[in-house]
Amino acid sequence: MSNKKTDSEQILAMEDGPILDRIQGPNDIKKLSKEEYPILAAEIREFLIRSISETGGHLASNLGAVELTMALHLSLDLPEDKIIWDVGHQSYTHKLLTGRREGFRTLRKYGGMSGFPKRKESDCDAFDTGHSSTSISAGLGLVEARELKGEDYTVVSVIGDGSLTGGMAFEALNNAAKLRKNFIIILNDNNMSISENVGGLSNYLNSVRTAEKYLDLKEGVYQSLMRSGNEKMVRTLRKAKSTVKQMIVPGMLFEDMGVTYLGPIDGHDVPRLMKAIRYAKRVQSAVMIHVLTQKGKGYSPAEKHPSRFHGAEPFDVSTGMPKKVREKANYTDVFATMMCKLAKQKPELVAVSAAMAEGTGLKRFANMYPDRFFDVGIAEEHGVTFAAGLAAGGLHPVVAIYSSFLQRAYDQILHDVCLQGLPVVFAVDRAGLVGSDGETHQGIFDLSYLSSIPGMTVMAPKNKWELADMLEFALEQEGPCAIRYPRGEAYDGLKEKREAMAYGKCEVIDQDEDAQICLIAVGSMVKTAEEVAEKLRTDGHRCMFINARFVKPIDPAMAEYARGRQLVVTMEENVISGGFGEQFRELLDERVPAEVRPKQLCIALSDAYVEHGNVDILKHETEIDAESVYYRILEALN
Amino acid sequence: MSNKKTDSEQILAMEDGPILDRIQGPNDIKKLSKEEYPILAAEIREFLIRSISETGGHLASNLGAVELTMALHLSLDLPEDKIIWDVGHQSYTHKLLTGRREGFRTLRKYGGMSGFPKRKESDCDAFDTGHSSTSISAGLGLVEARELKGEDYTVVSVIGDGSLTGGMAFEALNNAAKLRKNFIIILNDNNMSISENVGGLSNYLNSVRTAEKYLDLKEGVYQSLMRSGNEKMVRTLRKAKSTVKQMIVPGMLFEDMGVTYLGPIDGHDVPRLMKAIRYAKRVQSAVMIHVLTQKGKGYSPAEKHPSRFHGAEPFDVSTGMPKKVREKANYTDVFATMMCKLAKQKPELVAVSAAMAEGTGLKRFANMYPDRFFDVGIAEEHGVTFAAGLAAGGLHPVVAIYSSFLQRAYDQILHDVCLQGLPVVFAVDRAGLVGSDGETHQGIFDLSYLSSIPGMTVMAPKNKWELADMLEFALEQEGPCAIRYPRGEAYDGLKEKREAMAYGKCEVIDQDEDAQICLIAVGSMVKTAEEVAEKLRTDGHRCMFINARFVKPIDPAMAEYARGRQLVVTMEENVISGGFGEQFRELLDERVPAEVRPKQLCIALSDAYVEHGNVDILKHETEIDAESVYYRILEALN
Repeated sequence: MSNKKTDSEQILAMEDGPILDRIQGPNDIKKLSKEEYPILAAEIREFLIRSISETGGHLASNLGAVELTMALHLSLDLPEDKIIWDVGHQSYTHKLLTGRREGFRTLRKYGGMSGFPKRKESDCDAFDTGHSSTSISAGLGLVEARELKGEDYTVVSVIGDGSLTGGMAFEALNNAAKLRKNFIIILNDNNMSISENVGGLSNYLNSVRTAEKYLDLKEGVYQSLMRSGNEKMVRTLRKAKSTVKQMIVPGMLFEDMGVTYLGPIDGHDVPRLMKAIRYAKRVQSAVMIHVLTQKGKGYSPAEKHPSRFHGAEPFDVSTGMPKKVREKANYTDVFATMMCKLAKQKPELVAVSAAMAEGTGLKRFANMYPDRFFDVGIAEEHGVTFAAGLAAGGLHPVVAIYSSFLQRAYDQILHDVCLQGLPVVFAVDRAGLVGSDGETHQGIFDLSYLSSIPGMTVMAPKNKWELADMLEFALEQEGPCAIRYPRGEAYDGLKEKREAMAYGKCEVIDQDEDAQICLIAVGSMVKTAEEVAEKLRTDGHRCMFINARFVKPIDPAMAEYARGRQLVVTMEENVISGGFGEQFRELLDERVPAEVRPKQLCIALSDAYVEHGNVDILKHETEIDAESVYYRILEALN
Repeated sequence: MSNKKTDSEQILAMEDGPILDRIQGPNDIKKLSKEEYPILAAEIREFLIRSISETGGHLASNLGAVELTMALHLSLDLPEDKIIWDVGHQSYTHKLLTGRREGFRTLRKYGGMSGFPKRKESDCDAFDTGHSSTSISAGLGLVEARELKGEDYTVVSVIGDGSLTGGMAFEALNNAAKLRKNFIIILNDNNMSISENVGGLSNYLNSVRTAEKYLDLKEGVYQSLMRSGNEKMVRTLRKAKSTVKQMIVPGMLFEDMGVTYLGPIDGHDVPRLMKAIRYAKRVQSAVMIHVLTQKGKGYSPAEKHPSRFHGAEPFDVSTGMPKKVREKANYTDVFATMMCKLAKQKPELVAVSAAMAEGTGLKRFANMYPDRFFDVGIAEEHGVTFAAGLAAGGLHPVVAIYSSFLQRAYDQILHDVCLQGLPVVFAVDRAGLVGSDGETHQGIFDLSYLSSIPGMTVMAPKNKWELADMLEFALEQEGPCAIRYPRGEAYDGLKEKREAMAYGKCEVIDQDEDAQICLIAVGSMVKTAEEVAEKLRTDGHRCMFINARFVKPIDPAMAEYARGRQLVVTMEENVISGGFGEQFRELLDERVPAEVRPKQLCIALSDAYVEHGNVDILKHETEIDAESVYYRILEALN
């Protein structure tokens, strides 16, 4: 093939069939001519839009990273070279280019392809990701391992500007600065995390981004510098505390930290990206390539509403609107409404989000009470201790963070909030199985890690009214409280059961003095318990059931309700270890003498990570759905 | 008093009795004349050295912060104004100046004064600290609360250069950059965290520290700038992307992030410090005062060996040597020796420390194998994910972090190490009650937070030989393993019990087919169990006892050993919730039919934070010492 094709030749190439068909595995992209790059990019976009419109998935971030991924694949040898995708939801093009096109039919479905990099899925996936800001740490580990083992491969961490605000990314940069070996960090800067970006770093990047006048000069200096491949020169430049440096290096902040900076570079220009990567590979230190991309690029609904197309449900390609219109409110909506309502009554109520104003439903609160809303960016640790500070200053903050992301602030909850007994309310959204995001995002540990903390109160609502009641109740307490509730539709059954909240007290939903079976369910499992009770009664079993409401402190009255039954069944959407069932067993043993103590069946998630897939399927597979629970109870009765 | 005193007048002042006697409460220092400041500083140092030499405590960091604390107290009004001491072990002078001189007699003793700031101890302690890097987050929370409530006080966060490497400090700075209100951050830069400082930030601060030529110019510009109290000028300066800025602002990195920078300033010059604070109070944004101090200042043994005088045992003032010479090895020593031994055999063994090379015993390994040792600074999160990267690259890292500090990496252990089943060994030192550091440092949650993680193996050794065996065993495993062991002397009893390690298998120490009581102890509690068994046998009770070895996976054989006994006693130095006892109860219920199931007594720490004090006293108070356990068993038997 010639190096230069005319437009008509390009069109001919397309008529030969899609270029994408020629990409069957890693490195196939290298067989393309330069002229085919933009066509491939367009095909990939078309494929992603069509495919995700059917399955749902992360769209905007992937559309932004098409050319960047192509440039990486053109510049590296996979699987020998290692790419670590921070967060990982931008890895779809990488999956396409490594022979996983068929996988998109089953994207994020049970048994299908994950929406995140998985080492078990491909040897081209160097490191599993899901939570933010881990890629530089992991990449640095791979680099040091490579050096110690005397191996020779390139390590590239690709991190977004949003992820860079996470503290551990900074810790990693601080450590990367010591390196005298090659390590490439690509800052994929789309001026967005999931919602809008916040903070000093964001402002700084903005100033760099717009400093166009420097670009030409910088480019020239770097070209000559890099052409020499001269480490000494790089160091000299780094040391130079001079005007010149400031003028040619917009990324002074990173240079000051000891990381060589290249950029900013147009992230949709494959040849320029390749050139930058080629330069970067010759630098014997950590080197950051600052790449400017547009989230949602090439699909105007996603360009306009990147946040809505962050993690999208199946949508209509022509309009960008979701195929299914949600009919029922989800827990997030209920939380959102209640926050606005309570804010009116309680001037001391403030809200904290970690880059999830929309996901947690706080956007509405933020619009109504901008002064009382704090989006700290992807910074769960800071967010929690900041809330502790707000509370110490006399306010009553509600921190809304997803269950799996709150894991990152375990120490801050324990050490900064609960140790001082500060009134901070944790709205733990996405608790329980979350579905298609899979292993890294399942919120199945919070009952354990929150219950282990002295002074914490842990609640879970059975339905939407109870979430509202619990939020109001939590804001009346003088100490820390957590309310965990699941993703998706809020249960709107059991409306008639709305006993007033009392601290540490359960709610008996169906009392039966002579029940043989006592079901005690936590939060989302109350609905399941209702179904199970119904089935059991149909069989002629006498059955009562209780809404635990509080996981911590656990209500000792529940042991009394269980006393003398044949079977007590605890039900929770959390791992067994440290969960409600174990704590209830302790209570039961302490309170109820052996002769009248029922057998306990503990319905919880077993000691394993849970893959992606539809929540109903996952519940069935993990045997916590109504049908499975029913059969497990029958088995336990025999 | 005149403003200027001669030397002889100063001496006269001293002869009037110590100035320190005149400091009875907050703000008393303001009654002194300027000439008395250096005398007071000298008296404080003398007091601290004498006092800590008797009680033990943090010396070096406190000697470094004497003048800084004096300047803060002279410039602020306490308790209205708020000082947040990052980590908090440098707050002794603050305690002295707020009327707690008498408290030093009982420093870090049970029922006595804490070695850290405690809100419950004084209204001059604005926020409790203990773990690193929390102060800017907490301070920012107080500032926002102040503004929303329309109050008017000054908030100062004092953070060391070591603590600044912790990611959440960066997250907080990133957020502080948005402020248009006053918030003072004092960077107490002694070029040391606990061991030597590491990383790009440290190099950067070094360059700032030595940029003396800029000092005069900068000082002049800032003086005129600040004299005007002009926010607009500060902003203009911040925006100026010019040589001038670079020359006058050595702290460009912080300015780039959006934080106004003042400094560096001699941290032992009270008037200069006061001047800087006065300037800083007028800036309507986050402002960092970079203060250079010397750790151990004024006591030459501590100046020479700041790391040894970080947390010191009682010592001889004249020589600086500890009063008591340790006779027995502690677990850290055993770990240190074994790491060096195993490193010889296993080239893939590498070690990771988070600013605790000495504390964790890895210093020796670092000296012998510098290429295989990584001190990541105060950055537990990065450290763990970095280790995951090392493991993904084919190495076998051992991450040595104290139990309470490892809390900060809970998400990284779960999400980056265990999810991928990577072979990382966690050496969890200071697990259990640690004593005089108190609430923030007790390592009493790790069995819970580690056990909740799928794929993790959790072990605890009974004595020093078993720690060695477990470390060797852990390095033979292909997945993640944690070994938790306590602070202090390693148990050297039960030497004859050294059954080979087998995965998931307990060790029966005293078998007795007809035992009435079965004790099952975890790690440090095996020694206690031995004593308890002895007492019980003396009483004529038949008693067997088991060393659990593994908390996860739990050995089902233990349920069999317990079968048919009257009482099974689980013993652990961890909170109940999610700990060994709860997990064993689950096992027992599942495996042993009710009619032959023994009653279980769960010996563990109750659901509360544990204060500072001698470990033996704390064990007695929390009823986990041999005597208490013995009586609790007798009670359970009846």
